[in-house]
Amino acid sequence: MKEISSERPNSKELAEYFELLKFPTVGADPMHLRDCVQCAMWLKKWLEGIGADVQLLLPPGESVLNAPPPVVFAERPGDEGTPTVLFYGHYDVQPPDPIVEWNTPPFEPTEKDGRVYCRGAQDDKGQFFSFLCGLRDFLNEFEGSVPKKEGSVPTFKFLFEGQEESGSAAIAKIAADLNDRLRADVLLVCDTSAAADLQPAIVAGLRGVSHFTVRLKAASCDLHSGRYGGIVPNAAQGIAELMASLHNPDGSIAVRGFCDKVEPPTPEELAAAESAAMSDDAYINETGVAPVGGEAGLSVTERNSFRPTIEVNGIHSGYGGPGSKTVIPCEAIAKLSMRLVPGQNPAECMELVERHLRLNTPKGMTLSVEDVTGDAPAMRLPLKSPVFRLAAAVLEDIDPRGAVFQWDGASIPIVSILARISGAAPLLVGFGQGEDRIHSPNESFSWRQFTLGRRWAHDILSELSR
Amino acid sequence: MKEISSERPNSKELAEYFELLKFPTVGADPMHLRDCVQCAMWLKKWLEGIGADVQLLLPPGESVLNAPPPVVFAERPGDEGTPTVLFYGHYDVQPPDPIVEWNTPPFEPTEKDGRVYCRGAQDDKGQFFSFLCGLRDFLNEFEGSVPKKEGSVPTFKFLFEGQEESGSAAIAKIAADLNDRLRADVLLVCDTSAAADLQPAIVAGLRGVSHFTVRLKAASCDLHSGRYGGIVPNAAQGIAELMASLHNPDGSIAVRGFCDKVEPPTPEELAAAESAAMSDDAYINETGVAPVGGEAGLSVTERNSFRPTIEVNGIHSGYGGPGSKTVIPCEAIAKLSMRLVPGQNPAECMELVERHLRLNTPKGMTLSVEDVTGDAPAMRLPLKSPVFRLAAAVLEDIDPRGAVFQWDGASIPIVSILARISGAAPLLVGFGQGEDRIHSPNESFSWRQFTLGRRWAHDILSELSR
Repeated sequence: MKEISSERPNSKELAEYFELLKFPTVGADPMHLRDCVQCAMWLKKWLEGIGADVQLLLPPGESVLNAPPPVVFAERPGDEGTPTVLFYGHYDVQPPDPIVEWNTPPFEPTEKDGRVYCRGAQDDKGQFFSFLCGLRDFLNEFEGSVPKKEGSVPTFKFLFEGQEESGSAAIAKIAADLNDRLRADVLLVCDTSAAADLQPAIVAGLRGVSHFTVRLKAASCDLHSGRYGGIVPNAAQGIAELMASLHNPDGSIAVRGFCDKVEPPTPEELAAAESAAMSDDAYINETGVAPVGGEAGLSVTERNSFRPTIEVNGIHSGYGGPGSKTVIPCEAIAKLSMRLVPGQNPAECMELVERHLRLNTPKGMTLSVEDVTGDAPAMRLPLKSPVFRLAAAVLEDIDPRGAVFQWDGASIPIVSILARISGAAPLLVGFGQGEDRIHSPNESFSWRQFTLGRRWAHDILSELSR
Repeated sequence: MKEISSERPNSKELAEYFELLKFPTVGADPMHLRDCVQCAMWLKKWLEGIGADVQLLLPPGESVLNAPPPVVFAERPGDEGTPTVLFYGHYDVQPPDPIVEWNTPPFEPTEKDGRVYCRGAQDDKGQFFSFLCGLRDFLNEFEGSVPKKEGSVPTFKFLFEGQEESGSAAIAKIAADLNDRLRADVLLVCDTSAAADLQPAIVAGLRGVSHFTVRLKAASCDLHSGRYGGIVPNAAQGIAELMASLHNPDGSIAVRGFCDKVEPPTPEELAAAESAAMSDDAYINETGVAPVGGEAGLSVTERNSFRPTIEVNGIHSGYGGPGSKTVIPCEAIAKLSMRLVPGQNPAECMELVERHLRLNTPKGMTLSVEDVTGDAPAMRLPLKSPVFRLAAAVLEDIDPRGAVFQWDGASIPIVSILARISGAAPLLVGFGQGEDRIHSPNESFSWRQFTLGRRWAHDILSELSR
């Protein structure tokens, strides 16, 4: 093992990293479209600098007035007979709100105690840029002075999008159009987390995700709870009953048929996942609450990695201000998302949920299910694949503890899509940590993490080019 | 019977009514304290105009910084040997939310097709001001030109408060302090509804009310629903389950012991109440929804007049904006109110509800029950009292259909308190109608209702002064 220290990048790399971070690329907000376009142009120039052909793409038929942030697609032909590596990253970031909670301006990269604070410092600009630096290190070894590196340079393809945080709509269309041009052997993604204390982790599974909104309507307006109490149905009570109906008292999902096709993990997968599990105390420390969500009788790891969930992301009806307002609310909404595991078809699951909601709509109320988006299936990768074996060996060389496998409860919907279209084996290795506070104020990324990402890129590419 | 047409008040009265409506007296909101004080001063001046001594009162020991809207107390001594009439009204109004649903500005009185649209146009500013106009008509008959009216002028006492919609806390303390100064024979209140098609109604019963807020806390902040889904408990789902637990599947209240002491109506009361009942179609017309709330197997009248309710007035947790946000909410609130019937002790019922909520708090969550206000028992008055007989005769003279008795599902908590302190017989006659949409956007009051209120005041006072 070579010693990995927290190396600050050199001044050119540092300047590039900070330039990249300064674009306020909130992809979900049309007000930031211009920033996204500028960031995409910056990436184009950078990729041209390593010899790639680069295009900025918009989905076909998209009007310029309503354009999404462009997708950056790049190709760099390699030596004959080498594998093709497809690299995916996203240059959009979460909104910085609540801005008042930032200690430094959210789009002004600020170095402190070996960390860089900025929205996107980690997710995903910092992670993908550390990878790109390692990739450039790798390419540089084939040029210039002696001794020239042995082996051959793989073909590289790159895809960067600006809507990962808001649904990946444009890239999904563009990838379908690119189709065969995306063919690759390995799909590399650097947008995930390492295990505790930065032990390397390889993502062996991701849950799928769909989102939707449920709306209940009862009376034509909010009504006086004395005059009409006991008479008209109450939409706030109705949405409570409807949401409560989604789960059994033991926390399991009550939607008929929803879990029928769930494919359980193999004993080997379960053992590997459990060996990397966090303790209850670690969860309490991290979240402020005991890990008692989900189905009774299953471990935390099983519940998060191998079981589906239906989560109420929000519920709103009637009065919520100070004091009291004695109304019977006439309307209620709930925002929901479901996380799916292998074996579950997103469209079929959505149908089952809708059926359940219709059957359980309280009397006197009208149900609508709106804004169904996502539709991303889960992904589970074979532990013994050649790519995983190669990655495990590379990571053990970087860290003698070796890599753990993770079945992430979260979702990166576009990865399943890109894996299918490209035919590539997904290899998700990232170096995030809880303390990075991605999606929260004061996001940051340490030079130690940056160095690991860079080293990982260099070493895995070296292995792949052998 | 004299003909009652829909008379617009004269220009002076109209100007007064609109001035009164323009004060945005949202008594529950400290931001509107100044408006409440100005409205109270306006009332003081008006009452002085009819010869009353008027004081604005605050509860003893209340700091000026934290003052509630003042109580207006007025006395107008009458002729020797006459009865004392105590009149109660409230100048505060419900918040105008949701403001976007108003067709005209909520505090800009707007006349259209014989109705005035404004928050408070009916509840209670419109109702009490129509009464005050009738009272002034009555007093004017004893002054000025011949022939002077026969009979004598009763002693009048007036109480107007600015917190009826939010718990009547200040007036309850002030009334206890005023004590003997409130002694009266009849307690007149004009804050209730007439029966269908404006047939006059005398309130023979009111439900009690208490309000409270329920808060659930889980994790220390909202968390990513993928990373933590199935691990940390979800406060939005928790509040749904907790609210759903309050009722059985048949709509009856599931709180143990809550209904044990309910006193059922006498057969005479039930028959009288049912005879004035609205049809299901009339309810559908009025509310836009079938009257399917409350307990299965009971009539609409029984459910609204003689059974208690626990209503969810609002429920809020997590994300509610456009699109999706895949969070596990860490906190949830629900606003609740309960309506009580005779036999139920408010404090005891609140204890039973709290016990139920504690027993049903989902695991991993912390419950708090906050802002418990109200504490008002129900009221039920003997049908054959002398005051009711007098009122019935007066109302039959105004409308040949005669008056019906109502056991109102709503509550005017302060009425029970004032009846006890003053020793007076409560006489609640008002002219509200469902189409007035009190507590909702586009509240209104018709000139026909205004005229009836005014005539009722004049005629009942004439009878009482004989």
